[in-house]
Amino acid sequence: MNSENAVPELAEPNLRALLATAGLDVEYVRAEGNTLYRRSETGGESVEIPVLDCAGGYGSLMFGHNHPELLAVARRLLDDHTPVHAQFSSHPYANSLAAELNRIIRRETGSEEWYFATFANSGAEAVEAAVKHAELDRVLRLAELTERIEATGDQVRAAVDSGAAVLPDEVLTRLGVERPAGTGAAGGADAVEAALAKITEENARLRAKAPVFLALEGGFHGKLMGSVQLTHNAGYREPFAALGVRTRFVPDGRPEALEEILKEEGATLLQLVVEDGLVRVVEHPHPVFCAFLVEPIQGEGGIRPLSKELARSIQAFGEAADCPVVIDEVQSGMGRTGALLASSHLGLRGDYYALAKSLGGGLAKASVMLVRESRYRPQFELVHSSTFAKDSFSCHIALKVLELLEADDGRAYRQATERGAALHGALERVRAAFPDVVKDVRGKGLMLGFEFQDQSLADDETIAGAAGTGMFGYVIAGHLLHAHGIRTFPTASATNTLRFEPSVLLTDDEIGRIEKALTDACEILRAQASDRLVTSS
Amino acid sequence: MNSENAVPELAEPNLRALLATAGLDVEYVRAEGNTLYRRSETGGESVEIPVLDCAGGYGSLMFGHNHPELLAVARRLLDDHTPVHAQFSSHPYANSLAAELNRIIRRETGSEEWYFATFANSGAEAVEAAVKHAELDRVLRLAELTERIEATGDQVRAAVDSGAAVLPDEVLTRLGVERPAGTGAAGGADAVEAALAKITEENARLRAKAPVFLALEGGFHGKLMGSVQLTHNAGYREPFAALGVRTRFVPDGRPEALEEILKEEGATLLQLVVEDGLVRVVEHPHPVFCAFLVEPIQGEGGIRPLSKELARSIQAFGEAADCPVVIDEVQSGMGRTGALLASSHLGLRGDYYALAKSLGGGLAKASVMLVRESRYRPQFELVHSSTFAKDSFSCHIALKVLELLEADDGRAYRQATERGAALHGALERVRAAFPDVVKDVRGKGLMLGFEFQDQSLADDETIAGAAGTGMFGYVIAGHLLHAHGIRTFPTASATNTLRFEPSVLLTDDEIGRIEKALTDACEILRAQASDRLVTSS
Repeated sequence: MNSENAVPELAEPNLRALLATAGLDVEYVRAEGNTLYRRSETGGESVEIPVLDCAGGYGSLMFGHNHPELLAVARRLLDDHTPVHAQFSSHPYANSLAAELNRIIRRETGSEEWYFATFANSGAEAVEAAVKHAELDRVLRLAELTERIEATGDQVRAAVDSGAAVLPDEVLTRLGVERPAGTGAAGGADAVEAALAKITEENARLRAKAPVFLALEGGFHGKLMGSVQLTHNAGYREPFAALGVRTRFVPDGRPEALEEILKEEGATLLQLVVEDGLVRVVEHPHPVFCAFLVEPIQGEGGIRPLSKELARSIQAFGEAADCPVVIDEVQSGMGRTGALLASSHLGLRGDYYALAKSLGGGLAKASVMLVRESRYRPQFELVHSSTFAKDSFSCHIALKVLELLEADDGRAYRQATERGAALHGALERVRAAFPDVVKDVRGKGLMLGFEFQDQSLADDETIAGAAGTGMFGYVIAGHLLHAHGIRTFPTASATNTLRFEPSVLLTDDEIGRIEKALTDACEILRAQASDRLVTSS
Repeated sequence: MNSENAVPELAEPNLRALLATAGLDVEYVRAEGNTLYRRSETGGESVEIPVLDCAGGYGSLMFGHNHPELLAVARRLLDDHTPVHAQFSSHPYANSLAAELNRIIRRETGSEEWYFATFANSGAEAVEAAVKHAELDRVLRLAELTERIEATGDQVRAAVDSGAAVLPDEVLTRLGVERPAGTGAAGGADAVEAALAKITEENARLRAKAPVFLALEGGFHGKLMGSVQLTHNAGYREPFAALGVRTRFVPDGRPEALEEILKEEGATLLQLVVEDGLVRVVEHPHPVFCAFLVEPIQGEGGIRPLSKELARSIQAFGEAADCPVVIDEVQSGMGRTGALLASSHLGLRGDYYALAKSLGGGLAKASVMLVRESRYRPQFELVHSSTFAKDSFSCHIALKVLELLEADDGRAYRQATERGAALHGALERVRAAFPDVVKDVRGKGLMLGFEFQDQSLADDETIAGAAGTGMFGYVIAGHLLHAHGIRTFPTASATNTLRFEPSVLLTDDEIGRIEKALTDACEILRAQASDRLVTSS
């Protein structure tokens, strides 16, 4: 395209240079099923070398690269001159997609509520749409509650004025208000005004508090200005801390953490009411919690499944604190774990769901935010939109993805479960053979993680050095690529864990190759023989 | 897809219902060039009715719907089984795209600096990538400055300790520090420590200040959690005010506004240095400004071109305050105004550019953030990423879009200018004939706005009612659609202004149809005859 020699590399050259240190900056030119073909120059000739893709677009390729039936839909849409840009019109395909998602979700979760759909273009955008909806809902709930509280103020004034009610001292004491001089125990307008003023002041102070978000340690919810605040990885989040919301990150394995947060952040809005001739103080929980973000299996956090116990605590917290639960199924969803929603295995019910990645079938950029009927605010649709979203191209591809998932009574889900179990078995055999090198094998279905023991104190200086700079997982990935033709990567926030997220097309032969390759990598690590690591070919 | 009658509409039903009130909820089934075909049921038969599309995907269709050459590229990519998902590899097509964008930008702006590219999936995502980069840069500048300031502290201590320098009273006075008892005018360690402690405290206070963003009144920069904070429209922004950054919105026509902001927000970080045997205070501007967001022509704000004067003020402010200028060319860019960058007509130079919409050629979801070399921070590439971005499909489509723009020595730019002028002439003739009904015609090239006079006090109750609820522009759009087969919309934040953003394929005949249709609408408004408005067909 550009023949000037003087033009430097301009599209993320630093990232490419870093990938190059582990031999990962190869060029892929073709993709089919679980295979990516990379270009290689051999003796002046350009040849294609097949690579088994276990990175799988970080979960975007439930049906592999360029699935024939999805390609056929894409071609048909192009041939039919589908109206990609038809904003602000009727979008029947978007409705069909929302309806079909609902049908499956009702089956999996037993929900009898509908989920309303807002479409977006990436996983992070879907998460942010959910958070925006949750915040609109929080602001409206707060406004409605404030209105109710203020409405009873006049009733209290009238009742005390007419002598129909008295304002007991205990109410003033409870509010920390002195009874104004000259007003008797029987009440009096001044005392009511003082009490109402104090309540108004205290409530206003609470209403001005910034909303609190909850997310799990290790959680990843995107890297946009807002979603990055909900992502736990400090390297991704902290430089941008001044751009966004306040998030409290919740550890696993410390059940009391949620109670502590509820205690620290929770507060009550006060209201004066008249009951049986007495003015009383009523307390209402302050809706300070905007949303609790949770992945049923943390992807970038190291393929870490949420425990049933923590899932139950999150659900209980959400109910106790009236805090909606946003289930981020961007990576775990769309069939990969044997169900549309990985959270359905846990019995965890979302107020919101975010789906993306495989929703686009490996071809389109599609994502969707779903909100349950009882939380749904119709006015959200008038304040949120996106030019590229809800388009005919990505909606039709996504519809075909759902059709492929549901075909033959859910064969794809069963394949994900069965193929995942077979791959899990292979990874587990390697772990059992090399407990000194492999720390853990985790995950569900075709979302598996293979965690190495920490090598930062390794004898081999090259290996220890890579571990010290966070490059260890990338170096192993480079070796798997060049020595074994297998592509994978560490998860973004837990770089000792390699991800295995191939498509349902994974064969026994391919599983054998993965097992052999990991065995080789483990032998090298056991021998501390970095000289045997191959990072070019 | 779903035959259960019980399934409600689930994809933004409230929005569709609102569109229905103006007859805008039609179904489009096919699209070619400037024509969208809508489905209509006539006598039990489904027929296609052509509609001239002047909404043009809000600026996404510089070359119209389903341009044959872009379709051919898309088909070829599908046929070749292009590797859509090949994250963390070499992406030569992304580099070619960045290089070609640079070549054009250098030509248009005379820049000799390179712009580095980060790809994203939507305009809002590109804006947020720019803001994230700007904030990373600000945080790093602040850290570097702080480090320099702290480094001289030890030098000052040593110089005063050794008697090589004295700490004059005026320094302590300047800092508001009392000279500690028992330290003479010649200096003394205690006085130095007191001065340094005060400086550390003051600087820490400034560093903790949230960054300030600037944007223009009427500006629109997206609706994600962060970008919505930079969008002026209160209805879109205020419900989410607690989610994000602090933005100061700058009015046009009040040149002193920028000076006031600089005075109110600006501050200096202090440093003690030794010069000629004296300890002195040096002041450094506090980098509190993160970014100034600006559209060269406001799209959703009513197709409002930035004045050269304000452009100059913004550029000067950016330089004076070391505040990077982020030029949002999402709607105005990609050739629509006769240049790749609408800002190049104004001589306004961006530290950042955001491009999207037509970059995807009406088929792909593509966007890019460009940052100039002197602001570029390589480490950004290690903290920011997106699964769907930088993919082969959208990059190749975008490369073809640039090829179409540049072909025949830039014929497309000239067409945009010439066709835009012809359309502008037609709109202007209608305005001249109906000054009582039409307030203004604005814009450049194929980005034009047609603003009606306010009708909220109209005699016709239906017209006045629509104006009162913000639906006036939509009702007129419904009439143009059903009575004249022309599709357009009001701009999102200025709903009395209709947008005209057709492709370069616009014919004289089509311009004639637009003139006739607007003339009809103006006659109806002049006659205050809402009974003649057609909102179904």
